[in-house]
This record gives sequence, structure tokens and C-alpha cells, in this order.
Amino acid sequence: MRTGLLIIGSEILSGRTQDKNLETLATVLREKGMVIDKVVIIKDEIATIVENMRHLMQEFEWTFCSGGLGPTRDDMTKEALCQLTGVSLQENQQAEDLARRHYQRYGRTWSKETNSYHLIPKGIIPLENPAGLAPGLFLTKNNRQLYCLPGVPREFNQMLIQTVLPLVERHPSFQRTAIEYLTLRTYGVPEEKIFFQLCPTLWDDLEKYGEVSSLPHTVGVDIIIKLKQGLRPNEIEQTVKQLPSLAPLLSHIWQWGALSFHHYLVELCRQKNIKLAVAESCTGGLVAHKITMVPGASQIFLGAVVSYSNEIKKDILEVNPKTLQTHGAVSVEVASEMANNIRQHFKSDFALATTGIAGPEGGTTQKPVGLICIAIAGPDSSVITSTYNMKGDREQLKERFSDRALLDLILRINK
Amino acid sequence: MRTGLLIIGSEILSGRTQDKNLETLATVLREKGMVIDKVVIIKDEIATIVENMRHLMQEFEWTFCSGGLGPTRDDMTKEALCQLTGVSLQENQQAEDLARRHYQRYGRTWSKETNSYHLIPKGIIPLENPAGLAPGLFLTKNNRQLYCLPGVPREFNQMLIQTVLPLVERHPSFQRTAIEYLTLRTYGVPEEKIFFQLCPTLWDDLEKYGEVSSLPHTVGVDIIIKLKQGLRPNEIEQTVKQLPSLAPLLSHIWQWGALSFHHYLVELCRQKNIKLAVAESCTGGLVAHKITMVPGASQIFLGAVVSYSNEIKKDILEVNPKTLQTHGAVSVEVASEMANNIRQHFKSDFALATTGIAGPEGGTTQKPVGLICIAIAGPDSSVITSTYNMKGDREQLKERFSDRALLDLILRINK
Repeated sequence: MRTGLLIIGSEILSGRTQDKNLETLATVLREKGMVIDKVVIIKDEIATIVENMRHLMQEFEWTFCSGGLGPTRDDMTKEALCQLTGVSLQENQQAEDLARRHYQRYGRTWSKETNSYHLIPKGIIPLENPAGLAPGLFLTKNNRQLYCLPGVPREFNQMLIQTVLPLVERHPSFQRTAIEYLTLRTYGVPEEKIFFQLCPTLWDDLEKYGEVSSLPHTVGVDIIIKLKQGLRPNEIEQTVKQLPSLAPLLSHIWQWGALSFHHYLVELCRQKNIKLAVAESCTGGLVAHKITMVPGASQIFLGAVVSYSNEIKKDILEVNPKTLQTHGAVSVEVASEMANNIRQHFKSDFALATTGIAGPEGGTTQKPVGLICIAIAGPDSSVITSTYNMKGDREQLKERFSDRALLDLILRINK
Repeated sequence: MRTGLLIIGSEILSGRTQDKNLETLATVLREKGMVIDKVVIIKDEIATIVENMRHLMQEFEWTFCSGGLGPTRDDMTKEALCQLTGVSLQENQQAEDLARRHYQRYGRTWSKETNSYHLIPKGIIPLENPAGLAPGLFLTKNNRQLYCLPGVPREFNQMLIQTVLPLVERHPSFQRTAIEYLTLRTYGVPEEKIFFQLCPTLWDDLEKYGEVSSLPHTVGVDIIIKLKQGLRPNEIEQTVKQLPSLAPLLSHIWQWGALSFHHYLVELCRQKNIKLAVAESCTGGLVAHKITMVPGASQIFLGAVVSYSNEIKKDILEVNPKTLQTHGAVSVEVASEMANNIRQHFKSDFALATTGIAGPEGGTTQKPVGLICIAIAGPDSSVITSTYNMKGDREQLKERFSDRALLDLILRINK
């Protein structure tokens, strides 16, 4: 079953809004053994919508569509469906019932004067929206399916899971054949060095198990094998670990799996009953934000101090003013004191500290933009520090700094 | 000049990696008066790449392509260009020089044994990569342009700005006609209420000035007018402000402009010489992260305490244990003390505090998931608090909580 996704939204094409529905759809479908084969993003323009709907429905058995269902004039999906199928809008009792129900949920009353949610192209089936007001729309024609969902990510997500997925699973051509991946997350070796110097025959060896891809990340390279049908990740992992061609890379693999640094770290701390605290300067709260993205993070995370001024470093984190004066705020010495003091202050097992220069201003020849000092204080009161020079703009550097800090903490805990 | 973007990357279709190059390209092109008309995302599969390159080059004068230029076997853009143009790879002196130069920049030596960066499809022009190793590729044919850039966001960005844009601007059909927008950012009124109750004739009135769109956001609705050629945002803003049909919405507009909450806040504080501190519970560092995303944030932001446990609230933020016991951690009383204490402790002008329930666990009937209490302490030592009930999963709630807190602070400072 080949699948396409049509994203309608001038605001996404203009770069002002980032699409989130592709990720949602891909993640949900993967668990059902489906992949998205193609995504097309177009503007809110009736002729363009009709044309692209038509093409996608020709090319794919399943087409999902996001956006253009709201009540305002820039919402054109209904009109596009009319033109696509050559019908006009008509009153639909089911849609009327849905609209009434959706409004009741928010304590409001819908009537035909509120908007035209009760008007639906002839032959289209309205779909319940568990998280918003506008009904979804479903067209099935010549054994092709078109599901139109709202563009608002929360509504897309809920309608997909609660309303659309059960319909997909009930379809006769739906076959559940879960797609399995084996992911090796590495660090410290560039992509080219891995495949052309360290492990020149690795790619060939891995291809026996499925489709291989290599993905440079913030602070490392992920090697991903989309496994051939019937192969199990756990079993293949054991086999792959024994490959002579992988041996030189083994010490650079920090995870056999696809978890993010923060998800992996929270899970690791939970297993080992470790409590964490963080002192952030250049990462400005991003390390804490990442950790607290993980459900249940409160079991292992005590908190953080974001010290964006030297005063806070001195007053709250009690960094010795002399250390600041002698070595500067961006130094392993200051990072060390930050980690040590917050660990004692917050009574955590481990503490992580970052100080660096995220730019665009503030760099010098000795301490350029992209420099970061990381310190980790552990239960034995020892502190290990490291320094990295990274590249990127402010946003990218904050990402890399945070991921590298999380990775260093993972490596330290796993040591 | 119509423009398409082809994104090659199975990892993006699989939802494991979020594309960033669309936003980069759209932002850079907008300043040159160009918009992206269509984006197509496809997997690393040679036939699919060739087919979609061909279609996009038929449909659009300018096609940009991201991904597939690296040295590993899943990088197929070069091979696709061979098939598209019916030629084979051949040694290219310019590409060889570029490869040598790119490697030198990183203190490494390139040779023909390193990889095949010196092999280029006949008729294709290699492009300098200012931030990586792989050269870009440029095809011009029948007055159609195809620019192939690396998928890694930092490399895409740098090559676009430094190498590709000068080529685009030099092209005879390039005309600089900047695209101007007028954006009204509102809060507190749902989209439907704006256009069907409060301001029923507003859309018609705004359409006189350009293409109107309405965009529900984390905590409000943005109304965006893509202005007709020659109209200036400043002048239209003055005219639109006088529209009788807009009058009922005026008090709900917090910004005439398109800045994010955090960019707006940092700019506001800079202008008014205000220093900020933040105490975060449920937002877990996201408020601090957002503020420190803004270049120059250190001028106005002193720092934050992320208190993810009651102990930190008591020990570091000195919240009265009785307040915690009587009202619970998620209460305006606790938020109040958090804001007050961090303001005094950090010696800031304003302080913002958040405490709430981001879920998925931890909700009760009285205090459900989605509840947030926000407190703002100001220079006159007064504290204002507010409580909201929001919807979404953990990630969405953290976003909404943070944006609402930033908005409340903006409104308080602007009062």
C-alpha cells in the first residue's frame, strides 16, 4: 500500500510555520507497517490543491491531506473536493451532528448560522474531530482513499489516531507488517572515516540485513538498517555486533537503538536510580528543557540553574570570583565549580554544567564562537571536564552543545 | 519566477529527522522577493529522484534540491543527474580543486582515493561548499535551473547564502521585488469568533490590501496579509488600525509584526532596559531556552531556576513549605512566591514563574493535565497571577505554557 501526504499551507511554504504533521503521520503509520512514500507541500490555492490531490490519488492507494478545513476563507479543502469529484456542497446530517457535538464539548452551541460545517461535498464522509471543531473529510473512489485532516497539529494527531486509523485498519487491503529498524548511534568519528577508513566493508555486510542509510547528526553519525521482512532487531543486533568489519567502530557506538540523548539518559537514570541536576550557561535552559520533555523526567531530574550572568554564577552557583577572574566564564575551571556546587546544593548524584560561546557575538581568538566547556560531577565527588570546538549558528550551537553534554553524561554514567 | 524544492531523504519521510532546509530556503528567498511554490519530499531511491527532478524542472523555472550529495552509498543525487541528463560521470578539474580546498580547510588531505568528489556528471557545474566537504551541483538547461545542495542544514544554509544566491541574483530573469507582509498577532479570541462574530467584514476589508490568511497559534490567532506589490507595511498598518471593522479586535492585538514571543520580549526589555529572571517548574527550562535563543539575550536575561522538585522550590527558591502544603505545588500562591523570591534573589526588574501539569501523569480532577499557574513579579514588588487550562500532549503543553507565560509578561510590561 503506497502512501502520499499532501500538506496544504502557504504559511509552511513561506517558512513561517514548521510542519509537524509529517512526523506524526510517519510515526503512527510506521507502527502499522506503513511508510510515507512522498510528501507534497502546496499553497492555499484551489486549482493547485485539486491538481495535487488528483496526482497523489493516481500515484498512491492512500493519500492523507493536512490543512484547509477551518471556517475561514483561506480554508479551501472542501471546495477542492467538490471540484475534484465534480459535485457541489450539500447539507449532511452526519456532519451537522458532528458539528453540534464538537461545539457542545467546548460548552458552545453550533447552529447553521455559526458556519457551514454541515455542508459537505456529495459523496464525502465527514469524520469526527476529537480535538477541535471542524469535521474531517473522507473520500473513497476506485479503491483509492483520501483522508482530509485539520492542519493544527493537535487536531491532526487526535483525529488520525482516534478516527482515521480505525478506518485504515478496517480496510480490506490493510496488512499489518510492522517495519523494524536497527539503529547504531555512533559518536566521535566522521561519516567518511567510518565507511572509507575504519570499516570499508561494513556497508556491504549490513546490506545483507536490509536497506542501509547513514545519517550525520548533531554530534555523531547514525547508521540505520531498515530490516528485511521477518528479521528481528534483537537477533540481528547480536549478529551485527560480531561482524569483524564493525570491530573498529564498536567503542564509538553509544546506543544500539534510536532513542534521543535525553530519552536515553532519563531511562538510564531511572534504571540506576540516579538523580540529576544541571547548571547551564551557554545552553540557556535547553539541557533542562530536553530532559523535561521526557514523560516521567521528574523521577530523576531535580532541577537546573541557568546562569546567564557572572553575578548568578557567583551568587547562586557560588563560583569563586577568583576563578572567574583568572580563567574567564568560559573555562573548564568555572564549569567544574558549577557542576560541583550544583551537585552539592541540589543534593543530586550527578550534575552537569555547560559554559561556552553560542555567538553570534562574544567570540575571541582564544575563545571563539562554538567553544564549549562541559563538566560532570559524580557521586564520588570527582569532576571530569571536556572542551569542544563546534560549528554552527546560535540555534545549531545550542543544539550541539546540549547533545554533546547529554552524551558525555551518558558515557560517564555508563563507564 | 516559479520555484520548487525537492527534499531527498528517507529519514525525513520516516519522521525520524525534521527537515530544516525548507524554512532556510523560504526565509532567504523571501528577502529576494521569491516564494517557494511547491515542496516535494521523497526517499533516497534513484528512479524516484530522477522522476521528481524532471517533473519539478518542467513545472518550475527554479528548482532547489536538498540531500544526497555525501560520500556514502545512500547518496544518489549525482547518479540521478546522470540519468536525468543522459550522461556519465567524468573527472572534473574544478570539482577536484574544490574537494582539495574543502579538505584543507579541516586540516585534511583529499586525494582520488578518499572518495569520488572529483567525478561529476558531464555538463554539471560543481559548487563550493563553505561549510562541509561535498561540492554542490548546478545544472542549467532550457532556461531551467537546478541547484543541488547538501542535506545537512548548516551546509545547506551556508552554500545557499554564499554560493547559490549570488548565482541566482546574476541570472537575467532574476527580478528583485521584495515580498512584504503585514501581520497582526492576536490573543484571547478564537478564530471563528474573530471572523464570524466580532469582525464579520474584516476579511473583506483586509483583502483590499493583499492575500489574507488566518493562522491559529499556540495561544492566539495571527492574521497575515501578503501585501500587493508596492504597498508598504508601515503605511497599511496605519490605515488598517483605523478600520471600523477591526475596532472590536484592537485590544486583542499584542503585536503588529511577526516576531515570536521571545524575540519580541527580548527587544522590549532591551528598549526599556529591563532585566529578567525566570523560575520554571512545568515548563522545565523552555522559557529560558526560548529567551536565550535570541542573539544578545544576555543583555537582558540574568538567568533561571528550573525547580522540578519540591525540595528545590523550598531550598533554592525559598517557597514557604506551608504554602506548598496548603495549596500544592501547582497553585497561584506557589507561583507567586517563586516569582517574588527569584526577583529578589537574582535582583531583576521583572520575574516570571510557571507551575503546572504537563502530563501525561500527575493530573487530578481538581488539577488536571494542562493546568498552569503563571506569576509575574514587577519592579513595584507587585505580583500578578493567572491560571489557564490548556490542551495538548506534554510537548505541546510545554510550548503553550511557555508562550502564554511570555505573552503575559509582554502584556504586563506594556501595560
